[in-house]
Amino acid sequence: MMITVSSPASLSNLCCGFDILGMALNEPFDTIQLAVKDEPGIVIRHTDNYQLPVNAKENIAGVALQAIIDAMDFKKGFNVVINKQIKPGSGIGSSAASAAGIVVAANELLGKPFSKKQLVSFAMEGEVIASGSRHADNIAPCIYGGLVLIRDTASLDIIQLDAPELFVTIVHPQIEIKTSYARSILPKEIPLKSAVIQWANVAGLVTGFLQKDYGLIGRSLEDVIIEPVRSKLIPGFDEVKQKCLAAGALGGGISGSGPSLFMLSTSAMVATEIENCMKAVYEKLGIEHKTYITGINNEGIKIIS
Amino acid sequence: MMITVSSPASLSNLCCGFDILGMALNEPFDTIQLAVKDEPGIVIRHTDNYQLPVNAKENIAGVALQAIIDAMDFKKGFNVVINKQIKPGSGIGSSAASAAGIVVAANELLGKPFSKKQLVSFAMEGEVIASGSRHADNIAPCIYGGLVLIRDTASLDIIQLDAPELFVTIVHPQIEIKTSYARSILPKEIPLKSAVIQWANVAGLVTGFLQKDYGLIGRSLEDVIIEPVRSKLIPGFDEVKQKCLAAGALGGGISGSGPSLFMLSTSAMVATEIENCMKAVYEKLGIEHKTYITGINNEGIKIIS
Repeated sequence: MMITVSSPASLSNLCCGFDILGMALNEPFDTIQLAVKDEPGIVIRHTDNYQLPVNAKENIAGVALQAIIDAMDFKKGFNVVINKQIKPGSGIGSSAASAAGIVVAANELLGKPFSKKQLVSFAMEGEVIASGSRHADNIAPCIYGGLVLIRDTASLDIIQLDAPELFVTIVHPQIEIKTSYARSILPKEIPLKSAVIQWANVAGLVTGFLQKDYGLIGRSLEDVIIEPVRSKLIPGFDEVKQKCLAAGALGGGISGSGPSLFMLSTSAMVATEIENCMKAVYEKLGIEHKTYITGINNEGIKIIS
Repeated sequence: MMITVSSPASLSNLCCGFDILGMALNEPFDTIQLAVKDEPGIVIRHTDNYQLPVNAKENIAGVALQAIIDAMDFKKGFNVVINKQIKPGSGIGSSAASAAGIVVAANELLGKPFSKKQLVSFAMEGEVIASGSRHADNIAPCIYGGLVLIRDTASLDIIQLDAPELFVTIVHPQIEIKTSYARSILPKEIPLKSAVIQWANVAGLVTGFLQKDYGLIGRSLEDVIIEPVRSKLIPGFDEVKQKCLAAGALGGGISGSGPSLFMLSTSAMVATEIENCMKAVYEKLGIEHKTYITGINNEGIKIIS
């Protein structure tokens, strides 16, 4: 019994939708191979160069898989082979891809005993060791596919939102920002006035997606609370944003807790223009970087074989 | 040249959507009659018993009408007859009905020189004297009809949202709460955690309306920021809410800044049950009250003759 899945990168927050919105992407994606073995225990092997821990208790995928083993009281074990293409710490859901990918693979291999919601819960066990907090805004889009609203994390009230076709351009400047640090610098209290602006934009963004109103999506991609704080950790942020908007981006901002930045657009030509702007800024700053032009992945995690 | 319009009551806020969501109602509604007269000036007459000022500079409708006169540099004047059925200070958009109704009537009478957005702006001039702040969450639904999102008040970015059929039950306990006081007791700063819960609910509520998902509408009708503060001003609030939910309401809360309370439901039978619960609570408390069972008014202000 063996299965291979691809598990995608994802954008979380989408500017104003801090902690509640996430979107699965077509690229990049990790590949995870899972096979049942007779002896108990999880054996993990990586075929990438990221030096992630192979001890299952320290490995995000290992912890998520253990949650499934415990829930089923499964007496056998697993051999796991992981090839990560989503660089850890990039802000495009690397840890979520590991955690979500392995639980979907295990569920498939074991005859689908669990619901999507249960799988999100198992995968969140893995995410905890990456970020120190239980959140589902990268995991849920991987498992459900497409654009996802997490209305309530405690009860996992997860709603799929129909989104129109969009081009997503991403730049990952190769600097390190720990998710836990990016979370620690956020204000504990915010002005009510700013919160009202934020939830007006959240309402606008969701409406823009559901009504396929690109102008409204663009006007609503504004974050008056998180971006002003976190953008200071990302060199070139203001220039990237300004140039990409001038190049025709609908809008964009920090992907997850950064350092990756994303911009949405409605054509391949504009998406490429945006990529060129991003590259130009980071070349000028002398910061190594990687870019992607991708789109919304409506399927999420896929069974490859 | 004479015209008569009906201008409806409206719900603003809708729990989590403080300052950004509003919904026009079928009932109650005011009637406003407007006629051009050759001499400049605004002459106002009321055919109700609310003792509202007849001096145009102190009258909400008068101030809104003056904004139109100024914008057009109109050299003649108006005779205005207002019959208010929406009691001032009830929290269901009484002042907005006056301000919005008169500008729509004047625009119609003068050959429609203004856009809906401009009319909202004129009507807001009138609202200012009622509440001391420029907001459009009652005015915009009167002028646009139906359920409306005000994404940005400064630029009047107003978006109509398609909502499914809903029954709205309202109780107006006859106590006085000034909008300006209800605003003054709100916290200036709120926890980021609460704000995230609120914008998750806003996103859920908008999605619930647009996807016609009644369950999601119900789960999202939660206000963790404004309601805990303002509900203390309204005797019987907790009991009304608890009993109405038990009777099958999807959810509800304070209408505008109160004291009216609203509950949404999906059938006339439940709407009536809810009305009975509301009446029972206020009868027990010995507080005079008025109830309405109504629905979403997708047309907004109507030309009667």
